[in-house]
Amino acid sequence: MFGSTQWAIPEGYIPEDDQSKSRELVSHEACCILNPGDQDAHVDIMIFFENREPAGPYKLVVPARRTLHQRFNDFRDPETIPLGTNYATTIMSDVPIIVQHTRLDGRDGIALMTTMAYAGNSH
Amino acid sequence: MFGSTQWAIPEGYIPEDDQSKSRELVSHEACCILNPGDQDAHVDIMIFFENREPAGPYKLVVPARRTLHQRFNDFRDPETIPLGTNYATTIMSDVPIIVQHTRLDGRDGIALMTTMAYAGNSH
Amino acid sequence: MFGSTQWAIPEGYIPEDDQSKSRELVSHEACCILNPGDQDAHVDIMIFFENREPAGPYKLVVPARRTLHQRFNDFRDPETIPLGTNYATTIMSDVPIIVQHTRLDGRDGIALMTTMAYAGNSH
Amino acid sequence: MFGSTQWAIPEGYIPEDDQSKSRELVSHEACCILNPGDQDAHVDIMIFFENREPAGPYKLVVPARRTLHQRFNDFRDPETIPLGTNYATTIMSDVPIIVQHTRLDGRDGIALMTTMAYAGNSH
Repeated sequence: MFGSTQWAIPEGYIPEDDQSKSRELVSHEACCILNPGDQDAHVDIMIFFENREPAGPYKLVVPARRTLHQRFNDFRDPETIPLGTNYATTIMSDVPIIVQHTRLDGRDGIALMTTMAYAGNSH
Repeated sequence: MFGSTQWAIPEGYIPEDDQSKSRELVSHEACCILNPGDQDAHVDIMIFFENREPAGPYKLVVPARRTLHQRFNDFRDPETIPLGTNYATTIMSDVPIIVQHTRLDGRDGIALMTTMAYAGNSH
Repeated sequence: MFGSTQWAIPEGYIPEDDQSKSRELVSHEACCILNPGDQDAHVDIMIFFENREPAGPYKLVVPARRTLHQRFNDFRDPETIPLGTNYATTIMSDVPIIVQHTRLDGRDGIALMTTMAYAGNSH
Repeated sequence: MFGSTQWAIPEGYIPEDDQSKSRELVSHEACCILNPGDQDAHVDIMIFFENREPAGPYKLVVPARRTLHQRFNDFRDPETIPLGTNYATTIMSDVPIIVQHTRLDGRDGIALMTTMAYAGNSH
């Protein structure tokens, strides 16, 4: 199946928002991963900052023929990602996947943005 | 003509919205397909989920020198795409096409996002 | 200089809006072209529709080391682009350029979306 | 590490906004740069306009394993970027980096848009 095993998202920022809002509407960022192939994808995510060494790896499994829409807000191990802080992301996989980045900013109505992540290679 | 025969969109989510709103303003997602060439494009779309096997194929024809802006909301055969559910998409064509993904979220004013889909090859 | 001579934008739609609003805030779509090189770029734009043959070519010159943010709303020759209608675009140049697509939807507040166009080749 | 040493962003426009608003919410554009590698990146940014020769270079250093979210609003040397003016950007680096473009339009609520920049080569 097609895709890449190396992805990067330079933009990252989770707005500080009222955390009592519904999961649907609270400000969040996600990396949406598609594994269209027939083998499970073992994924390592690293989070880069402006003023400190990277955090991670965060380890995920995206099963064969499945998608995973992973919120950065939900990362816990090895550490949470602070709100209101600039970060960036790399996503490495043992099999080809496709990665898209999305933010919902819910601080004043709904604002959305998305982009395909940058693919470091292609298969 | 230029384009790719393999495309993927990892992000997919149709917000639950008031279905009595106008077609223009009700929340929707679309894959916009351009067939710039001189042969009709026969397109197979598969929809991937987080917790079940993929749905599809959804079969479309994009005539030569035409665009088709296909709403995911309008898929009926073999099944509809549920609202409020994470999904992802692959788009396969027998001739080179170009694919772009767009969401309009109409739940609170208008929010928009778009990205070129990921091209698995290039011609 | 780097860039591509073939570009495509499958998504196109200019919302019907109050045409008495300021140029800044009235709904519009633009293709932003950068010519980073030392030769003027001669650009041909074709507009594709769902139900008719393409319109164009629309001819532009982007001078060396200049950008041009061309609104689709402003196309006049050979014909205007109708509001509220799905379309798609190809952009061909005699020298490498870079193309980005943007929509501002001003019908209810401001909504924005952007994506790099699809590059058919690279130099 | 993967990335590109040549990047371009054809779209650029900082809306004229109330400059007394908080840094978070005042209209701004940023280029988000990720340097995932083990060498510092020395980055030269040029700003292109519609009616004059380019400005720059603006010189930045993105340290190894760091991200930098650089607002175009904050450029001072050799000159500021005027508000309400169309521009475009090239970003050149001595080591591979990844670049993403984002605008927040805060004139009427919050509107967001983002895209990966165009990569002129890949490593």
